[in-house]
Amino acid sequence: MHEAGDVRIEDVPDPSIVEPTDAILRVTRAGIRGSDLGPYASLAPTETGRAMGHEAIGVVEDVGAEVRNIKPGDLVVMPFAFSDGTCAFCHEGLRTACVHGGFFDGYGTSAAQAEAVRVPYADGTLFPLPVGEDDALTPSLLTLSDVMGTGHHAAVVAEAGPGKSVAVVGDGAVGLCGVIAARRLGAEQIIILGRHEDRLALAREFGATDVVPERGDEAVERVKELTGGFGAHSVLECVGHGQTLETAIGIARPGGAVGRVGVPQEETMPASLPAFFGNITIGGGPAPARAYIEKLLPDILEGRIEPGMVFDRTVDLDGVPDGYRAMADREALKLEVRP
Amino acid sequence: MHEAGDVRIEDVPDPSIVEPTDAILRVTRAGIRGSDLGPYASLAPTETGRAMGHEAIGVVEDVGAEVRNIKPGDLVVMPFAFSDGTCAFCHEGLRTACVHGGFFDGYGTSAAQAEAVRVPYADGTLFPLPVGEDDALTPSLLTLSDVMGTGHHAAVVAEAGPGKSVAVVGDGAVGLCGVIAARRLGAEQIIILGRHEDRLALAREFGATDVVPERGDEAVERVKELTGGFGAHSVLECVGHGQTLETAIGIARPGGAVGRVGVPQEETMPASLPAFFGNITIGGGPAPARAYIEKLLPDILEGRIEPGMVFDRTVDLDGVPDGYRAMADREALKLEVRP
Repeated sequence: MHEAGDVRIEDVPDPSIVEPTDAILRVTRAGIRGSDLGPYASLAPTETGRAMGHEAIGVVEDVGAEVRNIKPGDLVVMPFAFSDGTCAFCHEGLRTACVHGGFFDGYGTSAAQAEAVRVPYADGTLFPLPVGEDDALTPSLLTLSDVMGTGHHAAVVAEAGPGKSVAVVGDGAVGLCGVIAARRLGAEQIIILGRHEDRLALAREFGATDVVPERGDEAVERVKELTGGFGAHSVLECVGHGQTLETAIGIARPGGAVGRVGVPQEETMPASLPAFFGNITIGGGPAPARAYIEKLLPDILEGRIEPGMVFDRTVDLDGVPDGYRAMADREALKLEVRP
Repeated sequence: MHEAGDVRIEDVPDPSIVEPTDAILRVTRAGIRGSDLGPYASLAPTETGRAMGHEAIGVVEDVGAEVRNIKPGDLVVMPFAFSDGTCAFCHEGLRTACVHGGFFDGYGTSAAQAEAVRVPYADGTLFPLPVGEDDALTPSLLTLSDVMGTGHHAAVVAEAGPGKSVAVVGDGAVGLCGVIAARRLGAEQIIILGRHEDRLALAREFGATDVVPERGDEAVERVKELTGGFGAHSVLECVGHGQTLETAIGIARPGGAVGRVGVPQEETMPASLPAFFGNITIGGGPAPARAYIEKLLPDILEGRIEPGMVFDRTVDLDGVPDGYRAMADREALKLEVRP
């Protein structure tokens, strides 16, 4: 990506092992993610361009001298953050706070919308998959790299569970995965706030019990009506705007929790007083997707959840620039890339 | 209180039973609370004055026809919020979200810095004490009406516990009770941020292991140094300013939790991005003090905690106006009132 709206497929040098803990992955599947649309809308012109993509499944081609558990030929999923797997935060499961970790930001690191990608801390970062390269489950497995783990994180932070009412703000791929996660955790009622008919139909298929197309104060009233007057126990904020966070706080029941996973677009959080007087907890952040793979993988392998349904279009590398356009125009929900 | 800085002791009609669920309390002890200093600094002139005080111990003088569990002659503690004890929120322990509940706001309700006070929902609100009217434990028991419960709430929301590092922002009575609560919950390290020598000495007596007099960025650096570079697992925000909340978020370890109990002075919360990227949870609000009495009372009765030490001056009703001045001038930490 050279600047906002300008995505090009270019030949660049092949990535190679830099650190002895690296692996090189031949990318078999990548994704275009809602968060990629941020720079697509606003990236200032760059001199060298920015490599894009942080969701991948691939085959390990090469590993550094200190890599122990990952070997060439492994089919692996690459979460959107790398982590050493050994620090205190990794042991606590908060992989996105790894002291050696980081994000595939497309400058210092290579990225996933490519034929190959260099993966730091391969032993900590990569997760081998027990399927073949073209398994029918691949789209769902690809969501473990980000959106399914991110929706799950929102649901965990919001304390979704049996007997709980859950509201999901946002009907993008993460919001839809949030619906899957809330259902999987046993939520009794799952309300999705959104306006895209096709996405809401998918949300219902994933387990949403109610749809609220209203926004702002009207959405707050509607969710309260649907929840006995009090609001939802658990709210998943899957957008990241100040307005949507305000709605999320507004629809939370007193004593409830908001799990926010939409990258915040503002410096401050709204509704400090309503959150305080309602004893509403606001948590969340970049999902420790790597730590959630163990939990979520069996449900995919055994067919209990099918988050891969969020992909509604597949392109090859040459189709990526138009893929960005299609997602930005809301023509496509989420793209799978097959390099 | 007629306006900021103008507190008067006046003869008013005796409170009487209005609702059949009311009780009338003869106040034997009341407190002046840090939060009373808000109106003392800023109350606009009022026509009728505002009754003040929401912390009390007293003897029940009269009860309404529907009061079952509280009877005349009982010595009781009155939490700062009234609650019916029977609604869904009361059953969940979130007494400050009771559907029939409210605060002793000094307009619609009477208040505690008085000879007598009318208490709504007496059965739900009041808690009988197993001691005599002048027991030596009375100051500590009085803190169950607010500051000890509030400090405990901050510690609970911030998930203080064994093996945890805890930081307390603010060295007022609530912050000091937060230190007691963190110690009681088994915290390993307790850092208090404050600048009042006498209060910090008390904090050390209550269990604080470290004192940080710095503020802002310097405080953040200092707390990180004290916690192995990462920040505190649990942060108790006991002030309520935007700046102190920003500090609280800044000193929290990734994945940590901030429990805020200082009434927010601003509409927005700061540091949305640092909180997000650190996966820091921000919760708290008005403490369900009534629900905490059962937990905290045995520790007071058996001498394991002595939160009554936060009272450093006692006055009669006529001494209340000067008591406000002394607290506002930071000459006194917290006043006990003996009507």
